[in-house]
Parts: sequence; C-alpha cells; structure tokens
Amino acid sequence: MPDQNPTVIRSAANQEIKALRALETKKGRSQQNAFVSEGLRHVVEAVRRGWRVNRLVLSESASPGELLREAIHGCEAGGGRVLTVTDELMTRIARRDNAQSVIAVIEQRWGKLESVVAAPGGTWLALEGIRDPGNLGSIVRSSDAFAVAGVLLIGNTVDPFSTEAVRASMGSIVNVPLIRLDETAYLDWHRSWTGRTVGTHLRASLQPESVGRGPATLLVMGNEQSGLPARIAATCTRLVRIPMRDGADSLNLAAATAIMLYAVTASAGAQR
Amino acid sequence: MPDQNPTVIRSAANQEIKALRALETKKGRSQQNAFVSEGLRHVVEAVRRGWRVNRLVLSESASPGELLREAIHGCEAGGGRVLTVTDELMTRIARRDNAQSVIAVIEQRWGKLESVVAAPGGTWLALEGIRDPGNLGSIVRSSDAFAVAGVLLIGNTVDPFSTEAVRASMGSIVNVPLIRLDETAYLDWHRSWTGRTVGTHLRASLQPESVGRGPATLLVMGNEQSGLPARIAATCTRLVRIPMRDGADSLNLAAATAIMLYAVTASAGAQR
Repeated sequence: MPDQNPTVIRSAANQEIKALRALETKKGRSQQNAFVSEGLRHVVEAVRRGWRVNRLVLSESASPGELLREAIHGCEAGGGRVLTVTDELMTRIARRDNAQSVIAVIEQRWGKLESVVAAPGGTWLALEGIRDPGNLGSIVRSSDAFAVAGVLLIGNTVDPFSTEAVRASMGSIVNVPLIRLDETAYLDWHRSWTGRTVGTHLRASLQPESVGRGPATLLVMGNEQSGLPARIAATCTRLVRIPMRDGADSLNLAAATAIMLYAVTASAGAQR
Repeated sequence: MPDQNPTVIRSAANQEIKALRALETKKGRSQQNAFVSEGLRHVVEAVRRGWRVNRLVLSESASPGELLREAIHGCEAGGGRVLTVTDELMTRIARRDNAQSVIAVIEQRWGKLESVVAAPGGTWLALEGIRDPGNLGSIVRSSDAFAVAGVLLIGNTVDPFSTEAVRASMGSIVNVPLIRLDETAYLDWHRSWTGRTVGTHLRASLQPESVGRGPATLLVMGNEQSGLPARIAATCTRLVRIPMRDGADSLNLAAATAIMLYAVTASAGAQR
C-alpha cells in the first residue's frame, strides 16, 4: 500500500511495541528500569516533575494541542523518542480501547534513604510487605493528597511501578518519592529518626485523632494479612487504634491508611 | 470408571455449574436473584445473618469441621442444596485455584427505604452513581467496620452483588443493608429525613472533624468522576471538605468515604 507512512507502527510484533508490552511484567520493568503511564495529563505531570520519558506513544489521529506539544518536547528534550502507531494498534495496546490515548514509557526513579529527614510538620509513610497493587496505588494517591514527603516500602512489597499500581495512583506516582529497603535497613535507619513514629495496633486504646499536632511524623502501616511485625511495631512511639464496632473484620488497608493520614496530617501539616 | 461417585459433579458443562458461572454477569444475577460468595468463613457469616443459601458447592476433599457443618446445615435448613464437585473442577471454578474452597450461591436481599429512620447516633450512607465495584465493596467493608446502619445506592450504580464487589467487601456484604432508589425517590424520601445530612464539596471550608457528635447522620458521597450532583448536594445540611494540598487530584472514593465515616462516627457512634 503505497500511501502508508513507513514511520507509523502498525504491528504489535514491532520491537518497540514488544518492549512496551514487556513492561506489563515485573521482569520487563526491572530489565528496562521503566514503567508505563497512560493518559496525556499524567504524562505531562511526569514531564513537569522532571521524570525522563524514554518513549512517548501516540496514534496517527492524536489531537494536537498545547499539552501534547509539552509531552513531546519533554520526551525529546530528555533524549526520548516519540513513536506513532496506527489508531487500530493504539486501541489494542491502550487501556480503554481508546485511539486517542497517549502512552509513556518512563524511567523508574527511587528515592534515597538519606533524604528521609524529620522536618517540622512533615509526614513520611512506611508500608511493610504490602501485597496488593491497587491498594499501593491508592495509598500513593492519598499520600500525594495529604502532602506526604515520601513512602518507604519495607521488605518484600508489590512493585509500585506495576501497571495496576500506577493506574490506581491516578498520576500521583510521579509526585511521591518512593524508597525501598529491607527490615534490617529500616531498623538501622530508625535509630537516627528524630521525629515521632505512629502505628496502628488492634490492642491500642488511643484514637488516631489523639495524635494531633506534633513534630515530624513517620506513620507505619503493616500489610493486608498480618499487620505490623513486632520488630517494626516496636519502633513506634505511639500506637493507636481506629475505632470500629466489636467483631468487625477490620478495614481495607488503603482505607485505614487514608484515615490515619487524615488523622496525622489534617491537624498538623496538610494546610501548610 | 466404576469407582466414580455419580453424585459428584466433574464437568463444567453440568447445568448447576453453568448456572453458578452465569452469576458472573449482571444478567445472570438478576435472573437468578442471587450472587456468589466464596470462602467458608464468609458463607457461615451469611448463614448466621439469615441469608438464604441456594447452593453450597464443596469439593470431594473438603475438610470436615464445625464451620463446614454449620454451613451445610444452614443451606439445607433454608431449602438449599449441597453440591459436591471434583477437586479438579473446584480449582477451575474457585477464585484461587484452591480445591479446599467453599462457594455459596446466596439469594439477593435488598433493604426497604421505610427502614431508613433517624435513630440517635445512627449513621446511614448514601452513594450516588458509584461506578467501580472494588470501590463499592471497600465502602461496604468500611460501613460494616463503622457500624453504618445501611447504604442507599442512588441512581445508576454498579451492582453491589457483582463478584468483585462481594470480594472487596470481605464478607461485609451480608452485614450491611443495601437500599436502591433513583434520584427522585431519594429527593422525595429526604423531605421526611429528620437527621442531619453531611456531604463533601470542594468549595466547602469546614473540616470533616468539625461535624463531631450529633444526632442521626446521613453521609452522602458522589461518584468517582463528578462528585455530588447539585440536586443531591442541596439536601446536605452541612458540607465539608477533606483538607488536601493545593492542586492535589483528590482521593480515591473509597478512601474519601472511609475518612468521612471515621470523622462522622468515631466521635459520635462507633463506640456505642
């Protein structure tokens, strides 16, 4: 077909598209040190926050506009490449059969433990062994809303750059520094943490709202199945319990974390 | 094979198994007026709460025990039937390839609007046009934890008896009465509601914690995309805003609802 533009990718067997789809697996994300974010607004947010966009995938019929130009410029300025695919191929690789979608392959970026310092009124969140990517994404989104300085991921956690976690974060993944470390590194580091450390415990009697205004806060949340391990709970200077009816089977982890972030930041730091 | 027990179902083409799998669709659930719940603990909870179990599906190797006997008795006492399937078939129809799973087909049950009355310290929740089954299930779970009297589903909402919503509720679906109604019915009914009505609004200035202790409360939450429609917002006697950093893209609906339920019940009714 002589009228086909040879630079437009039309096959899912194309090497670039294969590399994109490999990012659906943790192995692929590790090998490429990258992740996928979909949606023009989220991609532009990433560019503005200085994330490196390795590939920007558009369809032939992508609507031109200010934001799209910004995304393209941001990608190319960082040494990335813009790829154009047919509308038909875009509907196959985009999340919602949407030929207008914009997909970015973004370089992963992890924060450093040395950056976790106790600033007055500042809040950090630590999550131990979190398993569900939707929960992690929702927690990152809540962390962004409550101006959390960053999230420590302790131990064997689900990948925050998984497609499901990135989606559930609704773009917040580029706004919240993520730091990964194992339990030993956490315990070592915590000895030099000068703020308070707040955790939840079923046998605690204090309510979350009792935490109130205070110095720098580290909020620690355990995983979906088993809560905080004893060694990490022992680092808490204050343990609280979200009040629930007798016999209730606890809250979803993302819901409990949102309540705790609200309790810890709403009176201490969210208005700063 | 002469040693096969003829009462054990071994094929996914069996009519009972087909009927079970039809419950994965909204149409199937409507036709059978039933839904699927998996896990022995959740099934026993349903039996104890007086839900009618139409079918109880076990595998040949299901471990006998007190709880299983209670589930079987509850099913049969209500006129339901117990089906046994091969381990191989159970791993195909159970959520987690688990031959030890127990699956129940439970009759749907909806609450009546007349039951929604303003009792001192009691909290009701109304959700308008909620779209995501995972969010709805998580909200039902939070409602159970905070002893909400029931949930009103206004307008065109996702099916609370969908498999994903039931799963996300972690069994709470049998503890929280659900009432469905359209917007007109809600507006009519609300004229006779004697408690206060609390909603969230981006332009409100009061904090959730300002609601505090009070009479009967109806908490109203809008949907994931567009928040509360003006006509429903107009029924609120108090509008509040969850404090967030400037420019934040809002919270996940289930997270925001958990925070509001905490704010409304923790100081007013959860300890009752």
